Amino acid sequence: MQPLRFTGRTLDVLDQTLLPEQEVWETCDTYELVAEAIEKMKVRGAPAIGATAAYGIAIGAQQGLELSKGEFLSYLEGVCERLAKTRPTAVNLFWAIKRMRGLIQTNADLDVADLTKLIIAEANLIAEEDVRLNKQMGQHGLPYIPENARILTHCNTGSLATVDYGTALGVIRAAHDAGRNVTVYADETRPYLQGARLTAFELHRDNIPVTVVTDSMAGYLMQQGMVDLVIVGADRITANGDAANKIGTYSLAVLAKHHGIPFYVAAPMSTVDYELETGASIEIEQRSADEVVFIGGKRMAPEGVSALHPAFDVTPHELITAIITDRGAVESPDEERMAKLK
Amino acid sequence: MQPLRFTGRTLDVLDQTLLPEQEVWETCDTYELVAEAIEKMKVRGAPAIGATAAYGIAIGAQQGLELSKGEFLSYLEGVCERLAKTRPTAVNLFWAIKRMRGLIQTNADLDVADLTKLIIAEANLIAEEDVRLNKQMGQHGLPYIPENARILTHCNTGSLATVDYGTALGVIRAAHDAGRNVTVYADETRPYLQGARLTAFELHRDNIPVTVVTDSMAGYLMQQGMVDLVIVGADRITANGDAANKIGTYSLAVLAKHHGIPFYVAAPMSTVDYELETGASIEIEQRSADEVVFIGGKRMAPEGVSALHPAFDVTPHELITAIITDRGAVESPDEERMAKLK
Repeated sequence: MQPLRFTGRTLDVLDQTLLPEQEVWETCDTYELVAEAIEKMKVRGAPAIGATAAYGIAIGAQQGLELSKGEFLSYLEGVCERLAKTRPTAVNLFWAIKRMRGLIQTNADLDVADLTKLIIAEANLIAEEDVRLNKQMGQHGLPYIPENARILTHCNTGSLATVDYGTALGVIRAAHDAGRNVTVYADETRPYLQGARLTAFELHRDNIPVTVVTDSMAGYLMQQGMVDLVIVGADRITANGDAANKIGTYSLAVLAKHHGIPFYVAAPMSTVDYELETGASIEIEQRSADEVVFIGGKRMAPEGVSALHPAFDVTPHELITAIITDRGAVESPDEERMAKLK
Repeated sequence: MQPLRFTGRTLDVLDQTLLPEQEVWETCDTYELVAEAIEKMKVRGAPAIGATAAYGIAIGAQQGLELSKGEFLSYLEGVCERLAKTRPTAVNLFWAIKRMRGLIQTNADLDVADLTKLIIAEANLIAEEDVRLNKQMGQHGLPYIPENARILTHCNTGSLATVDYGTALGVIRAAHDAGRNVTVYADETRPYLQGARLTAFELHRDNIPVTVVTDSMAGYLMQQGMVDLVIVGADRITANGDAANKIGTYSLAVLAKHHGIPFYVAAPMSTVDYELETGASIEIEQRSADEVVFIGGKRMAPEGVSALHPAFDVTPHELITAIITDRGAVESPDEERMAKLK
């Protein structure tokens, strides 16, 4: 199950806020609808957001075919700016927009129709690459997944979070395909429940044994010796190996350290932001408190009570056993070792 | 707001599974209904369960007034056995039943009507004592709550978890009443959301500033320097100071340790089980997976996916800064220091 379908004229987005109960595809025929699909988390997951933004620019280009060349270029810049404002933390969004901007600048001498064709081709290339890189990441991750491993994961990092296959879930898939007999504990991942709704859905469909737990059970599972390793994705990794990921990831890393359990981060190189030295510089998206207080449309906390909703946290590199990328794995990541991947 | 009303003929129980949305009182006129109210978590919280069980025996005694003396005593034993089977982890349940059994044995020579009067008086005494002891605990806890403290708590340990006032929330109330200007982060406490539903409700009503967070945000809050101390209740404390409490407590204790933040447990002496040497001997209640998978009647994980639901975990005494009881606080608790409270 892939999260995106580019039809040539529209980008159809699977509304992940409704899964697994309903499978609703939303047709985006304007870049504004694409931007809103990202903002409302109908599509989520750092690599999927990157590919969606690239397709958003492609849809935007098609909307501007009637413009003069000069108008078209400044209009495209506005499209890029709109898409860049959707979510602040996952760097794949900015990486994809930067790549498209580079393509546009390099080919600014082409006419509007030809430039649009190139933009569409580049968006398709980003999507195709993502799947190939995820499969490479899966292979690079294999040495870290022992036979019969009981794996704890957080949020959703599978097909639905990428163009296909997944990052951390891609490594789990690769281990399953290699006959390693793995079993997975999926943190439900409040407030959006990506673990209970999406990870459980994907793994169950692929016949990989999965058990849902609340986020608060991770410590208990580790204390009882029920977890052999933790593997998660990332939304942005800085030059020193610090990793921003879904809120709750940092707690898991601390718990894993306390119990001597390896803690892995799997992400493509497009998630690595060498421009930021440390995780302290990563902007953490603060989302609406209502997303915490309401569950399934029902208010849980009493009226008048506020909530916090940081959507991500940052795990310092000291707590990460290895970062697994499509170019290989970096054990005990730090600035020097991360630089070698560049 | 108190969770129980003993009318002399019935025990009325506030159905906490429906709070804060609805305030529904359930009238229990048989000990079986009292037992079911405990099993279904309409009443919860270790001290409240203890008092409820005592009242359950009182209701049971009134149901048996027509029996002969010999029949009455063996029937009462069956009542005690039924109530003891409701939930396994909170020792206050067994403590209250043991106290009532002792009273019955000591006064076995009385006639059925007089013995029943004594049983009712003892149940009322347990309830009255609970409130008084909680207030003492609040005073013993005061030295640990500095001015302007930002306090993280888990589950609900307030009026609703006791007969009134609360344990950990009692300490917070005492600090608030002493003008310490405290603010509280309430873990929502999945799966039952006692934090979002009950703790936020109680504190908001008492004008103590409270912000709800998901359980997964605790590490982030500590990392950001937003938490000065953690205080929780307990369902059973063993002779060496290990403490069973709501699932997720152990994770908080590990996180607090990692960040050098004090971690306090507040509980009455009726929660201390000197018969168990360590927490490894505490039976952890495993509840239905449906309570994890369904939220507000809606299934979140796909059909066919299982979940785990350990209702409690055990925090080893090494992670506890102090245990605060009605008899005083035990800093760096261990077997020797715990024995001095006896």
